[in-house]
Amino acid sequence: MIKVGIAGATGYTGLELVRLLLGHPAVEIAALTSETYQGQKIAEVFPSLAGHLDGELVPLESMAAWDVEILFLALPHNTSMAKMPGLLTGKTRVIDLSADFRLRAAELYPRWYQVEHPHPEILTDAVYGLPEIYRDKIRTARLVANPGCYPTSVLLAVLPLLKSGWSDADTLIADCKSGVTGAGRKLTLGTHYPECNEGVAAYNVGRHRHTPEIEQEISAALGREVRVTFSPHLMPMSRGMLATVYMNLTEGKTAEDLTDHYREFYKREPFVRVLDAGKSASTKNVAYSNHCDIGLTVDRGRVIITSAIDNLVKGASGQAVHNMNLMLGIEETLALGSPGMFP
Amino acid sequence: MIKVGIAGATGYTGLELVRLLLGHPAVEIAALTSETYQGQKIAEVFPSLAGHLDGELVPLESMAAWDVEILFLALPHNTSMAKMPGLLTGKTRVIDLSADFRLRAAELYPRWYQVEHPHPEILTDAVYGLPEIYRDKIRTARLVANPGCYPTSVLLAVLPLLKSGWSDADTLIADCKSGVTGAGRKLTLGTHYPECNEGVAAYNVGRHRHTPEIEQEISAALGREVRVTFSPHLMPMSRGMLATVYMNLTEGKTAEDLTDHYREFYKREPFVRVLDAGKSASTKNVAYSNHCDIGLTVDRGRVIITSAIDNLVKGASGQAVHNMNLMLGIEETLALGSPGMFP
Amino acid sequence: MIKVGIAGATGYTGLELVRLLLGHPAVEIAALTSETYQGQKIAEVFPSLAGHLDGELVPLESMAAWDVEILFLALPHNTSMAKMPGLLTGKTRVIDLSADFRLRAAELYPRWYQVEHPHPEILTDAVYGLPEIYRDKIRTARLVANPGCYPTSVLLAVLPLLKSGWSDADTLIADCKSGVTGAGRKLTLGTHYPECNEGVAAYNVGRHRHTPEIEQEISAALGREVRVTFSPHLMPMSRGMLATVYMNLTEGKTAEDLTDHYREFYKREPFVRVLDAGKSASTKNVAYSNHCDIGLTVDRGRVIITSAIDNLVKGASGQAVHNMNLMLGIEETLALGSPGMFP
Amino acid sequence: MIKVGIAGATGYTGLELVRLLLGHPAVEIAALTSETYQGQKIAEVFPSLAGHLDGELVPLESMAAWDVEILFLALPHNTSMAKMPGLLTGKTRVIDLSADFRLRAAELYPRWYQVEHPHPEILTDAVYGLPEIYRDKIRTARLVANPGCYPTSVLLAVLPLLKSGWSDADTLIADCKSGVTGAGRKLTLGTHYPECNEGVAAYNVGRHRHTPEIEQEISAALGREVRVTFSPHLMPMSRGMLATVYMNLTEGKTAEDLTDHYREFYKREPFVRVLDAGKSASTKNVAYSNHCDIGLTVDRGRVIITSAIDNLVKGASGQAVHNMNLMLGIEETLALGSPGMFP
Repeated sequence: MIKVGIAGATGYTGLELVRLLLGHPAVEIAALTSETYQGQKIAEVFPSLAGHLDGELVPLESMAAWDVEILFLALPHNTSMAKMPGLLTGKTRVIDLSADFRLRAAELYPRWYQVEHPHPEILTDAVYGLPEIYRDKIRTARLVANPGCYPTSVLLAVLPLLKSGWSDADTLIADCKSGVTGAGRKLTLGTHYPECNEGVAAYNVGRHRHTPEIEQEISAALGREVRVTFSPHLMPMSRGMLATVYMNLTEGKTAEDLTDHYREFYKREPFVRVLDAGKSASTKNVAYSNHCDIGLTVDRGRVIITSAIDNLVKGASGQAVHNMNLMLGIEETLALGSPGMFP
Repeated sequence: MIKVGIAGATGYTGLELVRLLLGHPAVEIAALTSETYQGQKIAEVFPSLAGHLDGELVPLESMAAWDVEILFLALPHNTSMAKMPGLLTGKTRVIDLSADFRLRAAELYPRWYQVEHPHPEILTDAVYGLPEIYRDKIRTARLVANPGCYPTSVLLAVLPLLKSGWSDADTLIADCKSGVTGAGRKLTLGTHYPECNEGVAAYNVGRHRHTPEIEQEISAALGREVRVTFSPHLMPMSRGMLATVYMNLTEGKTAEDLTDHYREFYKREPFVRVLDAGKSASTKNVAYSNHCDIGLTVDRGRVIITSAIDNLVKGASGQAVHNMNLMLGIEETLALGSPGMFP
Repeated sequence: MIKVGIAGATGYTGLELVRLLLGHPAVEIAALTSETYQGQKIAEVFPSLAGHLDGELVPLESMAAWDVEILFLALPHNTSMAKMPGLLTGKTRVIDLSADFRLRAAELYPRWYQVEHPHPEILTDAVYGLPEIYRDKIRTARLVANPGCYPTSVLLAVLPLLKSGWSDADTLIADCKSGVTGAGRKLTLGTHYPECNEGVAAYNVGRHRHTPEIEQEISAALGREVRVTFSPHLMPMSRGMLATVYMNLTEGKTAEDLTDHYREFYKREPFVRVLDAGKSASTKNVAYSNHCDIGLTVDRGRVIITSAIDNLVKGASGQAVHNMNLMLGIEETLALGSPGMFP
Repeated sequence: MIKVGIAGATGYTGLELVRLLLGHPAVEIAALTSETYQGQKIAEVFPSLAGHLDGELVPLESMAAWDVEILFLALPHNTSMAKMPGLLTGKTRVIDLSADFRLRAAELYPRWYQVEHPHPEILTDAVYGLPEIYRDKIRTARLVANPGCYPTSVLLAVLPLLKSGWSDADTLIADCKSGVTGAGRKLTLGTHYPECNEGVAAYNVGRHRHTPEIEQEISAALGREVRVTFSPHLMPMSRGMLATVYMNLTEGKTAEDLTDHYREFYKREPFVRVLDAGKSASTKNVAYSNHCDIGLTVDRGRVIITSAIDNLVKGASGQAVHNMNLMLGIEETLALGSPGMFP
């Protein structure tokens, strides 16, 4: 069994890593960290794990002794940034679920994350962990920067079309809807049950931190700088993310044309499902799974793309496990074979 | 007391009319119709009304005898269309909450409602019941076509800007999110609790029936034909509607400029609240009230407008009561003075 | 207009007091306190109130200058306890929504609230504000201790039966279900959206602080000490409380007998609705209203009573307004006339 | 691979069987039936299954040709009753998820299910499929009657205590709370989203069909006829079931005593987890898993037992797969190893 460690195991993405890895036939969870709950058993923090995992939570500092092949970092943004060279020791390879190594341009960090990046030299080595685009680089990466949930849903929705040259990227608008787990386990008034239940609102419109990440990958795909409009919304539900993306088409393509193109583009992808032309994606169909469902509609010269994922799985921990499988050279769907859980 | 009648009192908009009118100091509910539940008391159908209203449900046919001044039609689409001349008898004036008299061009009905309109001559007389735009015409109207919920949220969001000439209407995209009551009380698989709870999906993208209604009013405001992209989404919540509308700006206006303009435009409106520049509207703040909250953000030459209403109040029955108040020449906020109910 | 003040206006019961009093024809909100938000306008804290109330939040210390006739205390437990003699100055009468003056036996406070009561002498003067039982005393009270939400739902469910002598109080079990607003606005992991959404659990079984309050009133009704089993549960919904109460019957009474008795008992009560025999109460039918719906079923010698209230209205702020109306000698249903809001 | 068939694959328990069996290493789904959707692919009915299962839905009549070893019946009550001898042909063994063969006394069917049982002779052969009690009989059964969800949660909660002789079964009260999937996929007003969202109510108090099933097994355990009070409640959530059970203790046992006893009783059970004394079970911790969590509290001579399951897994399809594993003599936890999914 391959040994892996999870730093930050008591957040939602950490817990989701635990859940998925418990079903993995080739790896073993060798260590779990938590600063807040250190000394406790993880099943005391999450009773759902009782009888499944008996591990004690240790501080991240004890990590050197673990000797793990893969270390998952499920820590808050700006936490592991400074520690990174030290974590990449020995044979250990790192999959970082935070944003700390997602942006290749270090100068973006002060603006979007209010921090000067301490290790810009590592940024250029880090591989952006979107397997559908960077599969080969991920296989050999030392450090994978696991994509954000919003970027995952938006990029999978638009990259095939952008690469086709049939659309105008400058008209791209991404209206995204997220379940509340996307905001993490930290207590805030906005995620207090009575404050977000039975309501919907946009937040951080035009200034959400995932904007530069989306723009970085779209710009990379097109070979020029592109700016997009990205509006996140908080939904009254625990899990699930829907991106509704709008773009002007530059040629008279139909929804059928686009659907054919997407199916060809993703034909070898185990987790992307392209719906029949004119159908819309629903988060219910991908819940708790690593799938991304994509639906394409054309309305008067404009394409409307819906893209649904589970924000904690394909949008975070499932994609991280996918990356791990690629890095380890094992079957890439291991531990990720579950269909969406409906209802 | 002025006598009013409600046809279709056992749907959600009918019930909401009852709720609001029970708190109205100048009117009395003289008759309630239901074909399905005729002969029962309305408080048997809706026990929430026990002790508040003792009326028996009668068939619509008995209506002639009611002698009401205002008749609300809260019937399914295509139901009252053929009956209309007969309902406009005596002194009775009608507020129709269905779509049957909203579209001034009769030729749109076959395409969008699969029916040939039997009374195109009445269409031209009907007044579109958006008080913020048609207040004066509503006062004297014989027949008011109460707007749809989506059009209400979108039109209030965009008309001030469209009339300013600062934006390009051809780039208008309305991404709308509705609570499940918007789909009514009819049983469908899509509104069965386990099928829509904890999920979000778009539906009828580019082909929802509210599209021509939105386009009609935008075209009227601009004096030219305009086509828009409108994407409705179903949210896992009972009430509330959020429109997120995107448009390109043609001049270098800021969110502050736009906010000032909107506040001027709506300065005499009792139910429209324009938020501070850069803030986003939330459905939680308008729940159960007749308010429409509007927030404006500018992102790289594009405006993002969020507009929140309660779909059953400002999006339906509250707006209908507002129209009634105008038609009766009484204070227009009567029965509509409640703040949003939070939490 | 009669001047009233609300101390702790930025909690849920404080906000609900504001909402209800805004619709009250005879009173005016003269002052609002908040320590946390002092200096802000209340509509900044709760945008639902924008356009309805422009008051600035002041610290409780400034209260002496208000000269209000009624002061509502919507403060955390153990907060106003020590301040009470000072608050009862001049003509001001107090309605305390906390538990600080509900228990007549001072010696219960150390055990259930971990505090020595500093003013046992006031305890005996305070009137327990359940109008259905203590209406006359409330009218002249200087200090009303507004009941807890659980006790309200349980006591209204059982007092008519207990007073009839047809049941055995020692077999009383109250299984209660509460919406999340019952836990207030304080951030806790248990009320973080993803932690309580889509789940149900009991909490504080056999040791919830409302136990001695329930027992006090049942014991008072029977003239002997009674102990009950009370199990609260947290429901994944914002508002609403359902008590399901079980008791053994000592005589062969039917559900019809009991229903007749309850209807007689509550025949002059404006807010209690006794359902037809065999029907069960639903929180949906009383949402946002001051009603308490009660349903009675008999199963093999045991009565099963369901009692539904809105925890923030009849369970807190609505009942407080009811008490205020009684204290002021005005019509007791003022500001409380709304039916339940369905759906 | 062992071939199995699922009759009624387009209901929620049928779909859940599909989900679980897709992860089973030893069985293969050889046939799926649906009368309503026959001729369609199951992934057209449930898009969550796209890419996972390509089976076409066939009518039950074609079943003879399937040659399956295990046939799951996930049909409405009273549907398979008359067909049973015909389904038990060849080597096929049947696991019936309906109530048709749960009650050993045929005379109970007319009263509780409004039908005369056509095959009382099969009733006595059927084994009640609660593995914790009937494991050995299940191994060799030809026909397993899979327990109802409510009985599963209640029986696991009380059987260890009843068998100890430390409690008085005649005081047993089970107050149960179920998610909406428990009501199935059939459209009803009570499960229409806006009617059950944000509310809680009891239903069928004292007359729910699971009552005789609970009583049958309790009576069997005690060797005498026992009657219980059972009150089901509908919760505003998709999945999950909590039983809160009350009983008088006849001896001075503490929660610790009872917890020790339960842990001993269930020590070899892979799916029952007994919580520490005084803790309460939460449905969140068992969601999507086959676990039953049990918590024990003692309050003044009365035990309060909380028991949480996922109604579609341990309360239906997971338990059915458990039974299948036993019948096939394979490892009993196969396909059921997932922890609860939190959050």
